[in-house]
Amino acid sequence: MASSKLDEVVSLAKRRGFVFPAGEIYGGTRSAWDYGPLGVALKDNIRKEWWRAMVVTRGDVVGVDTSIILPSQVWVASGHVSVFNDPLIECLTCHKRHRADKLEESYAEKHHDQMPSNGLADIVCPDCGTRGNWTEPRDFNMMLRTHLGPVEDENSLHYLRPETAQGIFVDFKNVMTSSRSKPPFGIANTGKSFRNEITPGNFIFRTREFEQMEMEFFVKPGEDEAWHQYWIDARTQWYLDLGIKPENLRHYEHPKEKLAHYSKRTVDLEYRFGFQGSDWGELEGVANRTDFDLGAHAEHSGEDLSYFDQATGEKYIPYVIEPAAGLSRSLMAFLVDAYDVDEAPNTKGGVDKRTVLRLDPRLAPMKAAVLPLSKKPELQSIAHDLAADLRLNDWMIDYDESGAIGRRYRRQDEIGTPLCITVDFDTLDDRAVTIRERDTMQQERVALDQVADYVRRRIEDKRVRVPQKPVSMGGEAWPDSVRIAEAGGLY
Amino acid sequence: MASSKLDEVVSLAKRRGFVFPAGEIYGGTRSAWDYGPLGVALKDNIRKEWWRAMVVTRGDVVGVDTSIILPSQVWVASGHVSVFNDPLIECLTCHKRHRADKLEESYAEKHHDQMPSNGLADIVCPDCGTRGNWTEPRDFNMMLRTHLGPVEDENSLHYLRPETAQGIFVDFKNVMTSSRSKPPFGIANTGKSFRNEITPGNFIFRTREFEQMEMEFFVKPGEDEAWHQYWIDARTQWYLDLGIKPENLRHYEHPKEKLAHYSKRTVDLEYRFGFQGSDWGELEGVANRTDFDLGAHAEHSGEDLSYFDQATGEKYIPYVIEPAAGLSRSLMAFLVDAYDVDEAPNTKGGVDKRTVLRLDPRLAPMKAAVLPLSKKPELQSIAHDLAADLRLNDWMIDYDESGAIGRRYRRQDEIGTPLCITVDFDTLDDRAVTIRERDTMQQERVALDQVADYVRRRIEDKRVRVPQKPVSMGGEAWPDSVRIAEAGGLY
Repeated sequence: MASSKLDEVVSLAKRRGFVFPAGEIYGGTRSAWDYGPLGVALKDNIRKEWWRAMVVTRGDVVGVDTSIILPSQVWVASGHVSVFNDPLIECLTCHKRHRADKLEESYAEKHHDQMPSNGLADIVCPDCGTRGNWTEPRDFNMMLRTHLGPVEDENSLHYLRPETAQGIFVDFKNVMTSSRSKPPFGIANTGKSFRNEITPGNFIFRTREFEQMEMEFFVKPGEDEAWHQYWIDARTQWYLDLGIKPENLRHYEHPKEKLAHYSKRTVDLEYRFGFQGSDWGELEGVANRTDFDLGAHAEHSGEDLSYFDQATGEKYIPYVIEPAAGLSRSLMAFLVDAYDVDEAPNTKGGVDKRTVLRLDPRLAPMKAAVLPLSKKPELQSIAHDLAADLRLNDWMIDYDESGAIGRRYRRQDEIGTPLCITVDFDTLDDRAVTIRERDTMQQERVALDQVADYVRRRIEDKRVRVPQKPVSMGGEAWPDSVRIAEAGGLY
Repeated sequence: MASSKLDEVVSLAKRRGFVFPAGEIYGGTRSAWDYGPLGVALKDNIRKEWWRAMVVTRGDVVGVDTSIILPSQVWVASGHVSVFNDPLIECLTCHKRHRADKLEESYAEKHHDQMPSNGLADIVCPDCGTRGNWTEPRDFNMMLRTHLGPVEDENSLHYLRPETAQGIFVDFKNVMTSSRSKPPFGIANTGKSFRNEITPGNFIFRTREFEQMEMEFFVKPGEDEAWHQYWIDARTQWYLDLGIKPENLRHYEHPKEKLAHYSKRTVDLEYRFGFQGSDWGELEGVANRTDFDLGAHAEHSGEDLSYFDQATGEKYIPYVIEPAAGLSRSLMAFLVDAYDVDEAPNTKGGVDKRTVLRLDPRLAPMKAAVLPLSKKPELQSIAHDLAADLRLNDWMIDYDESGAIGRRYRRQDEIGTPLCITVDFDTLDDRAVTIRERDTMQQERVALDQVADYVRRRIEDKRVRVPQKPVSMGGEAWPDSVRIAEAGGLY
């Protein structure tokens, strides 16, 4: 059931122009996906809400936009060149490569948790069936490589970033100085990242090209744990506020022995995607990265990346709290969470099934649709004018004049449009239109010159202040809604 | 003089956190630049204005966001693998590589327009001074290469896109079908592109990683010339409307014999950047790409990429008009154009020089700055509250409490903030603040509860409809302001 819902969402996404496989006319690829007219609007809206919550409405976070291609030294210092590896083995019979650890895990699953006693000699190639004809495991780095300049050599080797975070650390001093910031303060960065995943899959969940929204929050050592908990709560609240159902969100606390090399504590926000096998998938990681990154870049670059507090005379390398969200994954989660099937009245007095995306109006790609009841020029003219006027408010407004009105409502429900505005023959007399609400399907008659205000009231952002710092530092408490399920240990 | 203004802008951009060299702590690079807190705000505002003009306020253009990494077949079909080359020669003495055509051009410049009579044998290596010790010219492809998956071979070879346009052509059919569009209609795409430039330089004008804003407008063959002129006018008007001075903008008509392989006619919009040697640089190209791209992709992919008009029974491959703008270059042009030095009164009754960025309020990174006159807690508290409230309107609001008020005004002038809002001791009594306007330096007393409305009126977008189609198809005429200088032929 859960997995079939996911299939339906993926099918809707392709059919209605949210997400297409990249290069589909050439056979497509699982490496990357393209966003169609509705997908790019949804993605931009999610990014905008993130930026608004993380940068615009805060006095203590600034934004940057850093390069995708950075010199090798950055990735040597960050540890990505030495640590960001998968162990791969190659079958000597069919020459296909696989992750050794994944093959051993799947062996153990089939053999009552017993690891293969003769190691790789026991492992059968999933491609050709040959047993134990493997090369030694070789580390396979997950960064994509390219060469800049006319000569391909060691000096021209550059990596495509596997995360946006390192761009922030490298620019830390420039940003702190030019923006006159001091801890506690954050730097936010969004954009494309690239990882050479061996097995991309699950729609846009795991791809080689993807989009991130990361923020590094720099604090005084000792204040890191309180800020870490603050950001776990803040990020949880962000998803709930934008409509994600609490029962589909949980916290996963990384066991100490499995923490990444830079982390003191990491909590993932997981969403119930409904994958085959495992329902849950990581949406965002909130990590306490300590002073690992700034310390490593200070050492490798020779730059002093510490902060000197003139008031207290203290000098320290800040600790870093990182809420690292996947924009592509968020989009997938918002789509899955909003997807619903209920019933709507049909013209025969009965009910039909209808598919509806219950997206928050802030995220909905189209804010409203203007629908002339017929193709009569006098209705078209009013409808065109109305759509053009509404668009000047920077709202995406659909216009649709094809087919029966009920069918046009269904089309808009399916893409999550909050409001349908019908221009009918009465409009010619009363200068008013009928506005139908997506979720309740209630209709209301509204004067033409009041439509913009009506739309604004219905789709307007909820503008509320949220707690800006940990309770222990005088901040307000979060609402109870941020207390969602905790996933203990491994699963 | 012109070149020194450019130097001042570059220096301001680095100092105030608009643009930094990428990876500067590791020695930097001319390949790519990072955008700091003010730069990312300015860039986002430019992109938003472009998207608003090209997508949101139009009924006939939809948006997409396509992948950076596309399969090789895409670039074979587009011609980029065979044609997107620079001819490079290598000096056999010092092994540095150069563009043969550039060396020959600079020879001709020094020798009264005479090309070298013995060809490369006459050319001296600019690096080591050896004459005529060159390899044969070899085509050097300007696309960056990378390999996806665990094996580096022909099959895993992918290119980083050198333009966003091809992503549109590849998705043409998917987008047209899912969005139920028909010609004339457009598809817009923005994002990073990559070119392995041999000589990156001139700040962010020529870099290996850069950002584009491209739109492909699909029309019926025969209507292409009228639409081409329409888009030349529309794009010119866009720059002028956002404040670019007409005397710094001109049209450059590509001579027929120098047109790109896909083009029937191309007009560049050039900006007077004030480079050493040549003042002008390309800001945007508006090309009539004919049916070249869709035709090539139809042939290579085997997909039918024609449009069938059910009303008339006609079937055709649409012609394409492409306004292709550089986002990074636009940002540079807006900075240069807004940069000004005038005089402001000082505290001694005289005048001081002041640097001011006269950015259109829609583009200004900060919409206003809140300045408590002193660090007294009662002023800070009002100022913090005011800033927090204004930020809920999705405005970037600066807060500055350091130094004399005049100095703080200068800081805001220098980054183009339209309004400075000062909270002073009278505020405690009259619940009002002083608002100073950037360009006129006029001040006005405004009640605290009226500040948001005041700011909104001053920075609000000019919301006007612009002509939506060519005059010959019933569209309105453009204002005379779009008639700027034409640059004839070569220069």
